[in-house]
Amino acid sequence: MLENIRIVLVETSHSGNIGSAARAMKTMGLQSLYLVAPKQLVDDQAIALAAGAEDVVKKAITVTSFDEAIADCSLVIGTSARLRHLQSTLIEPRECGVKAITHSINSQVAIVFGRERIGLTNEELLKCHYHLTIPANPEYSSLNLAMAVQLVCYELRMAFLSKKEKTLPLSTIENIYPNSAEMEHFFMHIEQLYTELGFIKNQGVMSKLRRFYLRSGLEKNELNILQGMLSAVKKQLK
Amino acid sequence: MLENIRIVLVETSHSGNIGSAARAMKTMGLQSLYLVAPKQLVDDQAIALAAGAEDVVKKAITVTSFDEAIADCSLVIGTSARLRHLQSTLIEPRECGVKAITHSINSQVAIVFGRERIGLTNEELLKCHYHLTIPANPEYSSLNLAMAVQLVCYELRMAFLSKKEKTLPLSTIENIYPNSAEMEHFFMHIEQLYTELGFIKNQGVMSKLRRFYLRSGLEKNELNILQGMLSAVKKQLK
Repeated sequence: MLENIRIVLVETSHSGNIGSAARAMKTMGLQSLYLVAPKQLVDDQAIALAAGAEDVVKKAITVTSFDEAIADCSLVIGTSARLRHLQSTLIEPRECGVKAITHSINSQVAIVFGRERIGLTNEELLKCHYHLTIPANPEYSSLNLAMAVQLVCYELRMAFLSKKEKTLPLSTIENIYPNSAEMEHFFMHIEQLYTELGFIKNQGVMSKLRRFYLRSGLEKNELNILQGMLSAVKKQLK
Repeated sequence: MLENIRIVLVETSHSGNIGSAARAMKTMGLQSLYLVAPKQLVDDQAIALAAGAEDVVKKAITVTSFDEAIADCSLVIGTSARLRHLQSTLIEPRECGVKAITHSINSQVAIVFGRERIGLTNEELLKCHYHLTIPANPEYSSLNLAMAVQLVCYELRMAFLSKKEKTLPLSTIENIYPNSAEMEHFFMHIEQLYTELGFIKNQGVMSKLRRFYLRSGLEKNELNILQGMLSAVKKQLK
């Protein structure tokens, strides 16, 4: 389960944070690290702070875009300090642990951490199924990046241990959820069609639809029906 | 409650760790830091790593012995990497949070972290009521001191928030979900429209759509958008 969960760091400024994050991951049994366009590449500082977790840093996968890092994931959880406007999809680390572990039994999960100062962009946040907020002290909520990674990985491990304890037969369950690329395709169809129909006139509607469908737990066979409905309307328009 | 819980660091070697621990404490709402005979006193490095938590470092109380740091406490929880022999009093961070918060309502609590390399001595461990162990990766359990402080303070905060919540009146939360009649109205619209479009030919599709939308957690404002989309298509058909 833990091997299907990746930690994604977006445009990290300090390579030391990459090393510390890798160490935090490994202490909790996580191995898969993705770096989206890091400002500093992995260097001596990163290796030094990784301590015994050099292996995690060295096999980290560097990609150029957010989309690339999450394309094959069917659950994407984004974290950022400024999430107040995303009420309906906000989760805390404990719930994040449970959701990610449940999902990771048969599909890929990404937990994405934004830039040190400015977090994730709105566009990136809209591509996430859930938004993680750490219930920190409202008067001083400035967690270091690696500290946040540590807390989240700790809750992943706690959920993992508790799942393992229940000794479920973990195999056989098929992956029933669409991945991010498939969801993007669906959103593109909605936007094209309803813009043409004059219903979508600005990005507000699409943001709300994205937020709803991403958190809804939509399954592949249900997505097929919704796609079929879009095609039926499109055919009529011709 | 949190104000009655102190973090005690015993003979810390690196002042940077004191600063990082202070920052970790403050993000979770803890303020009281005791230093037992630190090897390096609070210096620029400690202040730098404390970031916005300088106040915690500056008002830290330095004492010369373990006994002095815990004298007025009625619950002392000791943490160390090598605790295997203390089976009967071992607790994990979550249980530690609950015990400490419960106790802190009317007495002082100390959570004690040992030296970076060698932890607490046997003599010190014997003065603790409970012994905290972090359920880390058995193949690599090397948490940085401040990371361990972060995890423990996080569980203190979680226990604190859950205690606080239980004393709040739970009413007043607004109902944001549509009722059954509103959902039925929505399903009727879908069925009429897509039957007319030739997409719905039997009840199978409607059953699947019902099952999806009913479990999806759809909110009122999102239902309004979906209704608007149906109307936009209907208008086009005329």
